[in-house]
Amino acid sequence: MTLTFENITLGQRVRFGYGHAADNLAAEVDRLSARRVMVIAAAAESGIADRITAGLPVALRHDDVRPHVPVEQAEAARTAAKESGADLVVCVGGGSTTGLAKAVALTTRLPIVAVPTTYAGSEATNVWGLTEASRKTTGVDDAVLPAAVVYDSELTLSLPVGLSVASGLNAIAHCVDSMWAPRTNPVNQAFAMEGLRAVADGLRRIVREPDDIDGRDATLYGCYLAGVAFASAGSGLHHKICHVLGGAYDLPHAQTHATVLPYVLALNAPGAPDAARRIAAALGSAAPVGGLNALREELGAPRALADHGMRRTDIPEAARLILPYVPADNPVPVGAEELTDLLTRAYAGESPQDSEAT
Amino acid sequence: MTLTFENITLGQRVRFGYGHAADNLAAEVDRLSARRVMVIAAAAESGIADRITAGLPVALRHDDVRPHVPVEQAEAARTAAKESGADLVVCVGGGSTTGLAKAVALTTRLPIVAVPTTYAGSEATNVWGLTEASRKTTGVDDAVLPAAVVYDSELTLSLPVGLSVASGLNAIAHCVDSMWAPRTNPVNQAFAMEGLRAVADGLRRIVREPDDIDGRDATLYGCYLAGVAFASAGSGLHHKICHVLGGAYDLPHAQTHATVLPYVLALNAPGAPDAARRIAAALGSAAPVGGLNALREELGAPRALADHGMRRTDIPEAARLILPYVPADNPVPVGAEELTDLLTRAYAGESPQDSEAT
Repeated sequence: MTLTFENITLGQRVRFGYGHAADNLAAEVDRLSARRVMVIAAAAESGIADRITAGLPVALRHDDVRPHVPVEQAEAARTAAKESGADLVVCVGGGSTTGLAKAVALTTRLPIVAVPTTYAGSEATNVWGLTEASRKTTGVDDAVLPAAVVYDSELTLSLPVGLSVASGLNAIAHCVDSMWAPRTNPVNQAFAMEGLRAVADGLRRIVREPDDIDGRDATLYGCYLAGVAFASAGSGLHHKICHVLGGAYDLPHAQTHATVLPYVLALNAPGAPDAARRIAAALGSAAPVGGLNALREELGAPRALADHGMRRTDIPEAARLILPYVPADNPVPVGAEELTDLLTRAYAGESPQDSEAT
Repeated sequence: MTLTFENITLGQRVRFGYGHAADNLAAEVDRLSARRVMVIAAAAESGIADRITAGLPVALRHDDVRPHVPVEQAEAARTAAKESGADLVVCVGGGSTTGLAKAVALTTRLPIVAVPTTYAGSEATNVWGLTEASRKTTGVDDAVLPAAVVYDSELTLSLPVGLSVASGLNAIAHCVDSMWAPRTNPVNQAFAMEGLRAVADGLRRIVREPDDIDGRDATLYGCYLAGVAFASAGSGLHHKICHVLGGAYDLPHAQTHATVLPYVLALNAPGAPDAARRIAAALGSAAPVGGLNALREELGAPRALADHGMRRTDIPEAARLILPYVPADNPVPVGAEELTDLLTRAYAGESPQDSEAT
C-alpha cells in the first residue's frame, strides 16, 4: 500500500521557558505591535495575570470566564473588546479561558496570544466551541488559532497533582486517539508519539514530586504536541464518546477523558496493530493497554465514570447517543453492543486488558 | 536545566500520494480559487508538467530555470508573471525550479503550489536565494513559503539512483545539522529524527530496487520532514561549510552535502552526546559516525571532494573563508585548524571515525 495522506500544518509561534512568561509575553506583544491589549483571565488566575501583564499596554481586563463558553458570555466579551478598542487578546488560563478568547477572535478577528496554565492543549488548535441553551457547537476557523503561545511551567505549579494527572491524561487521550482519527497521518502520528512519551514521563515525575520543574516542563511540552497532533488528526472514537458523555451528563471534561481512554484503546488496538505497537513503545511497555494501565496505576488516575456523576441507568441512552458519531473508519467496527459493553466497564472502573490479538 | 526554546511552525498544506499529482494539484488550484496559473518547469520536467497540469487554467508556461536562481532570470520570470496576469505559481521540479518560483513570489506576493521531483526540501521552507554577479544572497520571507506542496513519488522514479542517493543524503544532512543548528529545539529535533529514519530506510530500498515505490515514498516523506526541520532549526556548521564551498568553488550542491556530512558529524558528536545518541538510534547503529558510514557504504555515496572539482590547494583558503561563518554555539569549538583538518579529510575521502568519547 502506498503512502497517501493530507496534512495541514497550522502556522504558530511558541515561546517555552520556565519563569519566562512575562518577558516572552512582552516580546510577543511587541512583535505583534499591539497597543491596546484585552487580557482575559478568570478570578482564579488573576494573580498570575497581574504579574505577567504588569508591563503591557492593557486596555481591558476581562474575568467572566465560564466552562464551555456560553454564548451570552462570549457576546459580552466581544462587546467589551470592541468598546475598548483592543488590538490583541491575551488569555491566561485553562481551556475555558482560551475558549473565550477564541470566541472573541471568531467575530472580531483580533489575534490571540495564549498563556496556558493547564494541559488543555486548546491553544494549539483552530477549533472553537460555544454553548447555547445547553447545546455545544464547535467549528474550525484559522482566525481562532493563537498567533503565539507562551508556555511557562511555573504557572502550572499551582495545579494540584490530581488535576494535573487528569488534565495530563486528557492530553494523552489526544495522542492516542490521533493514531486512528479521521485525518491521522504519519506527521501527526509522529507528534502524537513524541507527545505521549513526554507527558507520560512528566506526569510520573509530578506524582513523585509535584514541584519537579523538569516534570512540569516535560508535561507542558508534551501537551503542546498533543494539541498539535489532535488539531491535525481530528476527533477519533475516544473524543466522540467523551463529547457525548460530557454534553449529555455534564461530566467533568478531563476526568471523563482520563477514565474512558483505556477502554477505547483496548477496543481499537486489535484493529490497529501498528498504532498499538507504537503506543506501547511510547509507554515503555510490551502491550498498549497494559502500559496505559501501569501508568494510570502509578498516577492514581480517575478510574470509574460512576465516580464522576454518571448513573448506571444512563448507559443504554448514552450508547444510543454515541452510535451516530462513531467514525466510519474506526479500526474496528463499533455497534450498540460494543458501546454498551465499553460504557458498562468504564462506569464500573473494571480494568481493561490487552486482547490476545494485540 | 529547564527546557527553554522558541519554535516557529510554518503553516502549509501537504498532499502526499503516489500517482496522485494531477488530481491533488487540481484540488489545490481549486482550493486557492486560481484562474490564471503560471507553471514553472525546466525543459527536463516538461513532460511531467504537461501531464499534471493538463486540466488546469494555465496562463503561462515558463521554462528558463537555472541553478542558484540568477537575478536576471528571476526578473524575467517576474515580468512574465505580471504580464500574464497570473494569480498562482505552480512549480514542478527540483530546488532550482522551486527557487525560481520563490523569487517570483518574493516580489509579486503570488501564492505557490510546489510539486517537487527531487529531494531538495526547499518547498518546505520560507528561505529564498538569488545569485547576482556570482554572489548568492539568501533571505527569509513567509511569502515565499509554498501554500501547498503536492508530493508524488511517481515523479521521482526518473531520478537516477546516484542522484537519488546524493539528494537524499542532502536531506539527511538537513536532519543531522538540525540537531545543533542555531534554533534547534525539541520540536524540530523530533521532525529531524523522524525524517532521518524515513530517508535512511527509503534510500536503502531505492538502491536495492530503484523502482521500489515504498522506498520512493519513504524517501520523499522523510525529505519533507527534513525540510521542515531545517526551516525551523536554521543552518548549523555543516550548512555553513557547504554554502561556502558551493559558492567559492562551484561544487555540486547535493554531492557536496553528501560528502562533507560524516566529517561534521565526527567533529560535533563528542560535544553533543544526546544528539549523537539519537542520530545513532535513528540510523539503527550503536554509534553515529559508524551508522552514517555504514549507510553511505550501502548506498555507494559520494566519498571525496576531490571527485567533485575541489583542488587540494583550495583547502587553506576554504578554511579561511568558512571560519567567520562557524556558528557561535556549535557543540565543539572550531578554529582554522579543525576546519583545515576536516577539509583535508573530506577532500581525500578518508573515512571518519567515532571518537572514543561518543
